[in-house]
Amino acid sequence: MFDRVALIGIGLVGSSLAHVMRREKLAGSICISTRSEETLKRAEDLNLGDAYEIDPAKAVIDADCVIICTPVGVCGDVAAKIAPNLKPGAIISDVGSVKQSVIEQMKPHLPDNVHLVPGHPIAGTEYSGPDAGFANLFENRWCILTPESETDASAVERLKSFWEKCGSEVEIMDARHHDLVLAITSHLPHLIAYNIVGTANDLEAETRSEVIKFSASGFRDFTRIAASDPTMWRDVFVHNKDAVLETLGRFSEDLSTLQRAIRRGDGDALFDLFTRTRDIRRSIIEQGQDVDAPNFGRDSAED
Amino acid sequence: MFDRVALIGIGLVGSSLAHVMRREKLAGSICISTRSEETLKRAEDLNLGDAYEIDPAKAVIDADCVIICTPVGVCGDVAAKIAPNLKPGAIISDVGSVKQSVIEQMKPHLPDNVHLVPGHPIAGTEYSGPDAGFANLFENRWCILTPESETDASAVERLKSFWEKCGSEVEIMDARHHDLVLAITSHLPHLIAYNIVGTANDLEAETRSEVIKFSASGFRDFTRIAASDPTMWRDVFVHNKDAVLETLGRFSEDLSTLQRAIRRGDGDALFDLFTRTRDIRRSIIEQGQDVDAPNFGRDSAED
Repeated sequence: MFDRVALIGIGLVGSSLAHVMRREKLAGSICISTRSEETLKRAEDLNLGDAYEIDPAKAVIDADCVIICTPVGVCGDVAAKIAPNLKPGAIISDVGSVKQSVIEQMKPHLPDNVHLVPGHPIAGTEYSGPDAGFANLFENRWCILTPESETDASAVERLKSFWEKCGSEVEIMDARHHDLVLAITSHLPHLIAYNIVGTANDLEAETRSEVIKFSASGFRDFTRIAASDPTMWRDVFVHNKDAVLETLGRFSEDLSTLQRAIRRGDGDALFDLFTRTRDIRRSIIEQGQDVDAPNFGRDSAED
Repeated sequence: MFDRVALIGIGLVGSSLAHVMRREKLAGSICISTRSEETLKRAEDLNLGDAYEIDPAKAVIDADCVIICTPVGVCGDVAAKIAPNLKPGAIISDVGSVKQSVIEQMKPHLPDNVHLVPGHPIAGTEYSGPDAGFANLFENRWCILTPESETDASAVERLKSFWEKCGSEVEIMDARHHDLVLAITSHLPHLIAYNIVGTANDLEAETRSEVIKFSASGFRDFTRIAASDPTMWRDVFVHNKDAVLETLGRFSEDLSTLQRAIRRGDGDALFDLFTRTRDIRRSIIEQGQDVDAPNFGRDSAED
């Protein structure tokens, strides 16, 4: 697909890309860059790439595709550093959970003769770092690309084809719309999970230990999401502020209604909501976006 | 353990008890009762018991242990019906997620010569009905018993031993304290999950379909919990109102603080919370209350 791909950042998504590019032979060579010497060394020990550079400006030399896999808060800095060395005609992309801010941060730095095609694979786990990656991460998952309308169509098509070879289905979407949809499907769920685990964490020590002990009654599900990478998620909330606050507003209104139903002992209203929410789960399973097994198949995983 | 056990209600927990009692030979005979003829027929087809009765008053005759496995809202009615036929010295228990209300509902109906020992196995899945049960449900899970201080100690000891033979570890606890701890570990997580899935469900059709499509970014985790049995959960919120509202109050205060941090772009406050929440996950995994695998081991379940 590409002669040379540069991966800037080698966490869960970056290392998973390295694995799948190797397996599917999508790049003649892979150059990996990350700002931590220790992480770069680890990537080398794991044999994730063909070349390793601390300096992203060196890593992008001759690359016909550059994928920035850092937290979204630093992609502007990365763009500024790599801009002078970008190969004319190169595709510049990323994997961040926020897209409008990524465009705003990166575009001013990039020369006119490269193609900015922001991307977001809807896939991940609560694990992070170069050891967390695996080649199947993107299998049967969506990848959203958010090019601007004036972006070169063949560059978009090429990146689309790349992600399809990584196992994904690709959707093209407006960056602002992406940020609103992801605020609901991803950012709000993470915020709520972090919040409830935080509430439990602030309890007095004895109750806190009971919460851990009896967590199989529901709470443990939230702790998985709330164990996600703190830097990545800090950046998401700072850079998708408006959509997150809008979505959180809706959630809070609905929660007030639910609270009132409980206070009034309105069982019918509760039953009605608890019935409607079952349909969405069914649709998600039908569309292959979750496993159809009790407790996410945990019990079989435990055996 | 017991000559004859009566199970009133044969959903997920009742049918799992039937399976494990058979496997571990914990009862000379099992009599099953449920108010739906169809469900009772299904239990018989699944060969879950030795006798089947629509009328709970008939089912409890000669039983030395009666376990009520219905939604908590009807346990008072069940107690009134079975009271005249209870065998002197019998243990009367249940499996409900709320304990104070169960005592208040049942105790006035029960004769003095039986032993009320309320119970709550901290185990479940989002599936319900007699087909959902399996013998391993209680394996390595806690079961909480909430007898009153004057309850016969040998009856408590006998039920404790029964649950241990079902695979559980047993904790004895005050009913009121149980209801507070479970409000945090179970009732609030379910309420939040139902609420966020409800918020998504109310979106306009196009966005709603995108939420389903891109649910692997976090949202799908919540839909599992929000697919739980509506009747059971309606009853939980109606019957544990005070503890749920108290816990919800704390959660909402914390959420307001988090909302303000996002509005102000206070990345340090966000990073601090997101780091603290990782410890609880680690403790839960160390204590064997969840699997130590990315995405709950879903990926292995999918293979």
